[in-house]
Amino acid sequence: MAKIDIIQLAKVLNLSKSTVSRAFRDSSDINPKTKERILKVAKELNYQPNHYASNLREQKSKTIAIVLPELANNYFTQIIQGAEKEAKKHGYHILIFVTDDDIAKERDFIRSLASGRVDGVIMSASGESTDHSYLESINYEHLPIVLFDRIYDDIDLPKIVTDDYHSSFMATEHLIQNGCQRIAYLVINKELSIGKTRMQGYEDALKKYKIPLRKRLIIDCSNSYEENSEIIETAIRKQAPDGILASVERLAFSTYYVCRRMGIQIPQDLKVVSFSSLEIAGLLHPPLSVVRQPAVLIGEKAAATLLKQLSGESLAEEEKFVMMRSDLVVRNSSQA
Amino acid sequence: MAKIDIIQLAKVLNLSKSTVSRAFRDSSDINPKTKERILKVAKELNYQPNHYASNLREQKSKTIAIVLPELANNYFTQIIQGAEKEAKKHGYHILIFVTDDDIAKERDFIRSLASGRVDGVIMSASGESTDHSYLESINYEHLPIVLFDRIYDDIDLPKIVTDDYHSSFMATEHLIQNGCQRIAYLVINKELSIGKTRMQGYEDALKKYKIPLRKRLIIDCSNSYEENSEIIETAIRKQAPDGILASVERLAFSTYYVCRRMGIQIPQDLKVVSFSSLEIAGLLHPPLSVVRQPAVLIGEKAAATLLKQLSGESLAEEEKFVMMRSDLVVRNSSQA
Repeated sequence: MAKIDIIQLAKVLNLSKSTVSRAFRDSSDINPKTKERILKVAKELNYQPNHYASNLREQKSKTIAIVLPELANNYFTQIIQGAEKEAKKHGYHILIFVTDDDIAKERDFIRSLASGRVDGVIMSASGESTDHSYLESINYEHLPIVLFDRIYDDIDLPKIVTDDYHSSFMATEHLIQNGCQRIAYLVINKELSIGKTRMQGYEDALKKYKIPLRKRLIIDCSNSYEENSEIIETAIRKQAPDGILASVERLAFSTYYVCRRMGIQIPQDLKVVSFSSLEIAGLLHPPLSVVRQPAVLIGEKAAATLLKQLSGESLAEEEKFVMMRSDLVVRNSSQA
Repeated sequence: MAKIDIIQLAKVLNLSKSTVSRAFRDSSDINPKTKERILKVAKELNYQPNHYASNLREQKSKTIAIVLPELANNYFTQIIQGAEKEAKKHGYHILIFVTDDDIAKERDFIRSLASGRVDGVIMSASGESTDHSYLESINYEHLPIVLFDRIYDDIDLPKIVTDDYHSSFMATEHLIQNGCQRIAYLVINKELSIGKTRMQGYEDALKKYKIPLRKRLIIDCSNSYEENSEIIETAIRKQAPDGILASVERLAFSTYYVCRRMGIQIPQDLKVVSFSSLEIAGLLHPPLSVVRQPAVLIGEKAAATLLKQLSGESLAEEEKFVMMRSDLVVRNSSQA
């Protein structure tokens, strides 16, 4: 039998919510007969006051949703690991929703949560989103949301990010210091905030070393492995880069396969650095230099930020925008 | 506001369930005034007939749980990918529960599901389970469960597995044919059915080639990276294997790191084959020979089997035990 809430119970009894509420609080401020009637009807209708928040909000599901653009990415599976660990500590479960980088799926899912399926959300935005105004109609009091990694800059929600600008600046500078002059930047969806931020770091590092920015070296890739192989092969043939900064790990893997096919030696002919959370990047041939984001920690932090709100505490200013540090791990793929 | 069900609505109206039900079926077999009253009260109490199953069972959560021993494993994250894809096709969501290989967590979680949080479960059993009798008290009519990969042999539930015996037989035979005589078998928890099945394939392949089975070459590893490094290093020092069959992918990665540290050349000094779903096994140094389980497909199949039951259909005999084929992908790590 479904559970009813105090509003419905009060309506059935034709009493005020506060009167009904008193019946469950051992309050002396209530007529004993009224109390008896309330308790009887409550029992008949399966009303459970102990499961009911004192602030009259809905029952808690003890579940948080993780909304991700995709699963086929070590970064996101490590996010899940971190968030699951943190959630479990607090007795919460994890519901996964994958948007496939489709804003319509993201919007429909978030809207469907109004029913109370989950208590809150941590979300990395879908890639294509230019119109995410739907978020403005969400009541964050009832459904707190924490954004991580791929955020919407203009939406006022707690955000957990990494220092993408600084990381790609450092990685680009490292390639330049190892002799690269024609560095290609591989990106998926350069319109997304995270793509832009990383690109800015790349551009500013070039500027610092007075290397002209060549638009043709900014290579827009896709989510398809086959397409990326073709795009990267064509870029290597036509633009002859001597360095590559991959903003997403699988673009580096595609680069490795393409180079092997074309007989191009990494790092002798082409130096490669990639954003990546792959734990065995050091076992690749050659070992891959990476910007390593603390993905598990980001998942933990995003969940902890959400759970703090769910426990009724408010966030301090410095908790509303957390920037975590990535490391540049230099291995053979990028060294002269 | 919480939703009430038809039983509660009928009680409030002091009418029979069938009368109330008729009000929502455009039935002519009901007094128009009664119908009007029912619809009015239904609206007031937020009763939604379209969300209510006609057979008066509880509301469906449209969620399935995936119960996994761990997340830090490509195999399991690919399972989630496959299951999520299949579930989404049918409008279902995915709840993840990680048991950390702890039977108590597994049991408590499955029992907690009686509340209707999810409609069904696909599960890979926790490693340590010798006593899983709790499953016998679950009502599978209300909570269908499909087991995959790590199954409980003696529990009568639908099962999706891969041909582990044949795969490890093939992999061992391949190592023997490439000159190995002292093949170590690396396993985590050899008591688990899957560990046993894989070990049997290994033992039978040795037998076929009249190679004595040396118990010391069966290396029991742990879930800790540090411990495994030590265990594997000691085994290599003391047992001097010339081949390794790793039953879990991360044991192969540990082997790679240990060999690098010890100056042992793969495949010249030691040949390695591993069970692994890692898509970039071919990019490792040296490229890793693998038994590749069709993890995404297994996830899809497990979800499809569950969803078929949830749709009310019964499973054909051949759907209750599905064995999927793994491929032996031979690369440099195991060739003479």
